[in-house]
Amino acid sequence: MKACILAVGSEMLTPFRVDTNSLTVTERLNAIGYDVRLKAVVADDVAELARVLENALEWADLIVITGGLGPTEDDITRDAVARVLDAPLSVDEAIVERIRERFAKRGMKMPDNNRRQGMVPRGATVLENRHGSAPGLFITARRRPADDGGSTDLVLLPGPPREMKPMLDAVIRDRLAARASGAGLFRRVLKLTGRSESDVDAQAQTIYTRWTSQRVPIATTILAVSGQIELHLTAQAPTREAGEAALDAAVAELSRELGDIIYSIDGRPIEAVVGDLLRERRLTIALAESCSGGLLASRLTDIPGSSDYLDRAVVCYSNAAKTDLLGVPDAMIAEHGAVSEPVARAMAEGVRVRAGAQVGIGITGIAGPGGGTESKPVGMVCVAVVVDDREWVRTFQFVGDRGLVKYQSATAALNMLRLMLLGRV
Amino acid sequence: MKACILAVGSEMLTPFRVDTNSLTVTERLNAIGYDVRLKAVVADDVAELARVLENALEWADLIVITGGLGPTEDDITRDAVARVLDAPLSVDEAIVERIRERFAKRGMKMPDNNRRQGMVPRGATVLENRHGSAPGLFITARRRPADDGGSTDLVLLPGPPREMKPMLDAVIRDRLAARASGAGLFRRVLKLTGRSESDVDAQAQTIYTRWTSQRVPIATTILAVSGQIELHLTAQAPTREAGEAALDAAVAELSRELGDIIYSIDGRPIEAVVGDLLRERRLTIALAESCSGGLLASRLTDIPGSSDYLDRAVVCYSNAAKTDLLGVPDAMIAEHGAVSEPVARAMAEGVRVRAGAQVGIGITGIAGPGGGTESKPVGMVCVAVVVDDREWVRTFQFVGDRGLVKYQSATAALNMLRLMLLGRV
Repeated sequence: MKACILAVGSEMLTPFRVDTNSLTVTERLNAIGYDVRLKAVVADDVAELARVLENALEWADLIVITGGLGPTEDDITRDAVARVLDAPLSVDEAIVERIRERFAKRGMKMPDNNRRQGMVPRGATVLENRHGSAPGLFITARRRPADDGGSTDLVLLPGPPREMKPMLDAVIRDRLAARASGAGLFRRVLKLTGRSESDVDAQAQTIYTRWTSQRVPIATTILAVSGQIELHLTAQAPTREAGEAALDAAVAELSRELGDIIYSIDGRPIEAVVGDLLRERRLTIALAESCSGGLLASRLTDIPGSSDYLDRAVVCYSNAAKTDLLGVPDAMIAEHGAVSEPVARAMAEGVRVRAGAQVGIGITGIAGPGGGTESKPVGMVCVAVVVDDREWVRTFQFVGDRGLVKYQSATAALNMLRLMLLGRV
Repeated sequence: MKACILAVGSEMLTPFRVDTNSLTVTERLNAIGYDVRLKAVVADDVAELARVLENALEWADLIVITGGLGPTEDDITRDAVARVLDAPLSVDEAIVERIRERFAKRGMKMPDNNRRQGMVPRGATVLENRHGSAPGLFITARRRPADDGGSTDLVLLPGPPREMKPMLDAVIRDRLAARASGAGLFRRVLKLTGRSESDVDAQAQTIYTRWTSQRVPIATTILAVSGQIELHLTAQAPTREAGEAALDAAVAELSRELGDIIYSIDGRPIEAVVGDLLRERRLTIALAESCSGGLLASRLTDIPGSSDYLDRAVVCYSNAAKTDLLGVPDAMIAEHGAVSEPVARAMAEGVRVRAGAQVGIGITGIAGPGGGTESKPVGMVCVAVVVDDREWVRTFQFVGDRGLVKYQSATAALNMLRLMLLGRV
């Protein structure tokens, strides 16, 4: 069952606004077995919306349109639907009466143009709006004979989310759920770090190609985000149980194949994964950040309850701060440079001992855009992780702007700590 | 000149992701006179993208496609464009060689599937990507004779914003600007903090209502974002000069009306504004953060060159850290509680003196979701700013989740420092 979601409103064609209603609509439709194949934002223009609708009517089993049901001349969704379906509009006086009462309750007279909201295309069912004046509409259209001869359901909903959501849930419950196949889409997000996208893809592709043809098919999308990789698994299954079981098996198979590079199988960010490992093991952590500039501390403290394990963090941009706060010897900085493995190690150990913590992390590097040299280019970052008497120090060469170098440095440090806590290094 | 923007990627058809590239593309196209009439998100499916492209080719003067240019089987933009334009793909060995070199520079061997990124449809021009392996493509198609006989430009760009944006700017400069009409939309973003949205709107509305009917009309949108307010000004003008002149006058008028609450008239974030003030005055700064968890340090260090003024930051989650690192007396914490104005002041002054800096900031509060009490609820934050022998301490009650409380705390501290440096308090 294929669905198309249209958002109507010229304001969503400016640089300032995105359509977010479609995220809610997608989640609800997926759960009852509709696959959203296309989303579009269309201007407040009858001819343009009509053109997009005509195209969608050629293939979609369901078209959900949000917005354009208000009382003004700009609100053209009813007109476009009427034109495309050749279903003339007429005023439903019962709707107008309800709108008039709504205004009267607030001591106001209904403006004349609100009568537009009572216009209903022939054959449409009115969907009640308990939170606003614009009613929704439901109408089923036969697809053209030239196409497959099937039918398409159209659902028209108002744009404001608090009006739209309850109406969507009602129309799904009362009308769409029964027509849907029962089969739904069920999802899982795996997160990985420490390898390239194409590398992971090459290794795992034979697995997820096979999944597409199994009894409960699973589609996989690979995505690189800020130096991390996400694998989105979508199972198409007759019931939630069957979907979740297939996803469990798929996650287990990928975990065997890819091993430790997978850090999350439930969508949790790495800072939450590492936080839980620290809490389980009753460890406390202290951070010494130079080039990451406090981002590692900020990411760890984004997680509620992180005060259970984070004792302190020190952002030491100046060499004096490295010496004063962490006891990094001046002579070491002079000999190796502030960006060096010995200094990263001394930072990690210095902050760990001073905090009386079990875990210490030191990060020093060149975030850029300035400050790079031939031997120490922008993006070079040394990370040291100390857990009690074990230590691991690595030098990375990251690609990207200042923000991305900071982000990847923090992620790499968290991943090193994760692997150490799991006993993998 | 009508434009259509397509984002390719099944992940943007899930409930998890929206397309945001189209906002940047819209802003840039508007400035050279293109009107964006349709935006769509299409799945990683050759036939489906081809269908949407065919429809857009009937009316659009320009189609910008982002995404789907990666090396995997999922990356189908090249194939769909080749199919619709009937322009066979062939491998451009020069592109493959550049990708191979990119990998070699990072000590890696190019995986075989990256060869796909060297595929070019006949008649297309390659657009250089300086920040990633996927090159862009530019190709002009004649519209079908059944239509108006005009032509449509297609621009294919990679999905990652930091690769996409500079390539978009280059293709606009080199190819699109000359074709466009010259008349365009020109924009300015003013940023404000410290007042409510409706308060600002009430004060400024009469001004921007008047702007809509002047010779170069300016439309204004007010937007509340993470506890800050943005005023988006859009001038419609025949030339860039006329547009910028009208915007300059409008910004000057608003600045007179609203005064110091405007911190940025050129889109710069407050951390950059404050950074410049510190640099101009040759001041150094040290931070002591509790509930903001390093976010203030991270935001300040997002700005290139921040090592000129940031000496150090201390994230002291534990009371022991507050005492050890900042000299906050145990007795003060016992008497007033860790979240209190005296402790915020002692943190600011403690870190300032230890760093030998002129400016010190202390932030302590309840970020939530746990830890609130009746007298000190979630969202209560004490901020102290010390500049040499002047100090300013305030208590805020922020609304929002943990991340938003952190963000608003950091913004409030920066704004207090800004006002002190400007001599306004």
